[in-house]
Amino acid sequence: MSAPVRRPGGRSAAVLTSIRYAVEELVRERGAEKVTIPLVAERAGVNPTSVYRRWGDAATMLNDIATYRLDPERELPHTGDLRADLITWAREIVEHYRKPINAALLRSGSASAGEEETECLRNRRTEGLAIVGEPAALSADELIDGLIGPLVYRVIYLPWTLDDELPVRLVDKLLRA
Amino acid sequence: MSAPVRRPGGRSAAVLTSIRYAVEELVRERGAEKVTIPLVAERAGVNPTSVYRRWGDAATMLNDIATYRLDPERELPHTGDLRADLITWAREIVEHYRKPINAALLRSGSASAGEEETECLRNRRTEGLAIVGEPAALSADELIDGLIGPLVYRVIYLPWTLDDELPVRLVDKLLRA
Repeated sequence: MSAPVRRPGGRSAAVLTSIRYAVEELVRERGAEKVTIPLVAERAGVNPTSVYRRWGDAATMLNDIATYRLDPERELPHTGDLRADLITWAREIVEHYRKPINAALLRSGSASAGEEETECLRNRRTEGLAIVGEPAALSADELIDGLIGPLVYRVIYLPWTLDDELPVRLVDKLLRA
Repeated sequence: MSAPVRRPGGRSAAVLTSIRYAVEELVRERGAEKVTIPLVAERAGVNPTSVYRRWGDAATMLNDIATYRLDPERELPHTGDLRADLITWAREIVEHYRKPINAALLRSGSASAGEEETECLRNRRTEGLAIVGEPAALSADELIDGLIGPLVYRVIYLPWTLDDELPVRLVDKLLRA
């Protein structure tokens, strides 16, 4: 495995951080459906052009910001015990989306999904498959139907059921099947 | 089991039908996030008050309209063969949401979910448990994690994967577990 690539720091990282804070604040203040790129740019003190250049539209921006703490370049659990690694990974996702702001961002992103794969889905599937390793004990479809799908469904519709036991229950069912 | 209660016909049914058509047209024309109750009332030729009285706000209205063809009072498959009945039921759901307009309405409804159970989720769970029957071979959580969750996840994020084999695959996995 190659070493993880780190994101560049410096000015562009600072801009990104201020945009993220601006988005989170604005979502909290007025609800995700009323967050626009000009509003975000104004709050973050950046030029709207740089926001448009990065995300194209508000929906894509929200979708991306909703998942940034699940940075696709973060380190994944890797103990050699597939069950333990999948549970750790699923718990990270659950903990992330137990925060109401993150769940709200995911929901607002889902409103504009369906045209093509979201970055979030792509990242989660890639991570899941990386944890599963080679030879693959589980397919991408099995990960989606057995773990990612039910987790995200509960984030959207049943967030109060995101307890610590859910990842264990789902992973055990997935590995038993 | 008591006889299914039929919805009243006549004037209120006609009003409801014209509201549904208005919502579907407007969603197609301008996207769900721009559909408001006054717009719907105007298009349907009804008083906004009667729309507000029924649904309270646009998000609740969209959520409800998105699923009306899955009328909770329709007849459910009931052959005595649990696998066949669950597959028939899951296929109904898949067919419904293969229509882009229905998927779009589900997505827009999901943006405002999470405060309490949606009517749609409640209906699907009730139906699933009715098909499962007594003594329950499957719990509500098993239905959600094994069937409803993955189906709805794919409607939202991967609509092009809603093929005829998906219900079979999910039901077989659910019953094997």
